[in-house]
Amino acid sequence: MRIVCLGSGNVASHLAAAFKKAGMEIVQVWSRDIGHAAELAIALNAQAINNLELLDKTADLYLISIKDDAIENIVLSLQGVKGLVVHTSGATSIDVLKGLAQYGVFYPLQTFSKQKHLDISGVPICLEANSEHAYELMEQTASAIGARSDRINTAQRRVIHLAAVFACNFTNHLYHLANTILAANNLQFDLLKPLILETALKVQGELPIDVQTGPAVRNDVQTMKNHLELLNGSQELQEIYECLSNSIKKTHL
Amino acid sequence: MRIVCLGSGNVASHLAAAFKKAGMEIVQVWSRDIGHAAELAIALNAQAINNLELLDKTADLYLISIKDDAIENIVLSLQGVKGLVVHTSGATSIDVLKGLAQYGVFYPLQTFSKQKHLDISGVPICLEANSEHAYELMEQTASAIGARSDRINTAQRRVIHLAAVFACNFTNHLYHLANTILAANNLQFDLLKPLILETALKVQGELPIDVQTGPAVRNDVQTMKNHLELLNGSQELQEIYECLSNSIKKTHL
Repeated sequence: MRIVCLGSGNVASHLAAAFKKAGMEIVQVWSRDIGHAAELAIALNAQAINNLELLDKTADLYLISIKDDAIENIVLSLQGVKGLVVHTSGATSIDVLKGLAQYGVFYPLQTFSKQKHLDISGVPICLEANSEHAYELMEQTASAIGARSDRINTAQRRVIHLAAVFACNFTNHLYHLANTILAANNLQFDLLKPLILETALKVQGELPIDVQTGPAVRNDVQTMKNHLELLNGSQELQEIYECLSNSIKKTHL
Repeated sequence: MRIVCLGSGNVASHLAAAFKKAGMEIVQVWSRDIGHAAELAIALNAQAINNLELLDKTADLYLISIKDDAIENIVLSLQGVKGLVVHTSGATSIDVLKGLAQYGVFYPLQTFSKQKHLDISGVPICLEANSEHAYELMEQTASAIGARSDRINTAQRRVIHLAAVFACNFTNHLYHLANTILAANNLQFDLLKPLILETALKVQGELPIDVQTGPAVRNDVQTMKNHLELLNGSQELQEIYECLSNSIKKTHL
């Protein structure tokens, strides 16, 4: 399998590395920024390009991992290719690829950072395709890198993407807010690490609604009042505290 | 070391099991509800009581793990004991134990569920004591169960407890909200589990502010607008979405 990567960000880097590890060949990496393209291409032993006219039109798979609003433009440069073209965006319809011969969405439901190695096995990849043939190709590709695949249409993928914002992006920001609360009192973020990990481990086997703890679920009014006083210096933190505590109470009481 | 447990909830159960495993003897378990006391006492080969007049006054350690507002009352029954008396509450001052001979706070910074086994090693235990002698005893006890201990005063402990609400309680509730979003569309919570775990693993080695992802940190206005439309049926979820997205933008942009 010969692959062209369009994009060189977090998702492209992790997927391309997994494809390479599975014995596939990355032939080109395109990025608007040739430096970024080169950085990834060197690691993959591929050609770096920033000019779409140089695109290899004979690859088996074109992987588009770029900003959502730039996908449409890239697709124009792929007109006429026979290979499978996929994008990796949770929030973008499959229809942005319409007009191509074989296409689909290959959306890995995971958070990728360049600096952190990640084992892709077990990661759910949400697949949607314009034909059964294309779907089977994508399923084989997911399976080759050890990932799990799920048949997910565009409407479902949008819902999953939204749920992921709550479960990952908002959660990470709460970790950051906890750190600011500690740092303002010269306390180390290290203290919270085992707690953060256990909170995530718990819901691997239980539903979160069944393992909710804390003052709001106990309706411990005095502790919540004390917490709001401690947050006196920040209206923003007070609002978040009240907003989430009220939602917990609404769910449980 | 002979220990009396006052309380039979999540924290009491996990700590008592760790003490027992470390070779200490649990002599009594008190709970207002004799059924709850008996359930834990049987596992520990201890006596279950629900009458405070039956308290063994000769134990080396009294572990108070009950609702914050009930601690004061229990302390009245412990007047005159020579052993070390500790409570495990993050939100309660050490002063609630004043008047006793040896006392302190033994606050494990972790989330405990009865149904889930937890390895206590590596859990930070926040210690505060009324004397150096009591502090050393508590430090040895923490070390005997393989936990890490940190010297934390009452004011610091309150801050840590508040930060833990953000990092654990609110986070778990966000997992639940993500699940409700999925469930309303007949999608399984299983899909999110690798993402949730990776989000928590990432901040074991990086600061959360350095690994923030998602539409808010990219200021991807169109995606955020689409998400709010998807949440059309729930004003509560829309408010949480806006509140946290605004906070992310304020932090990063």
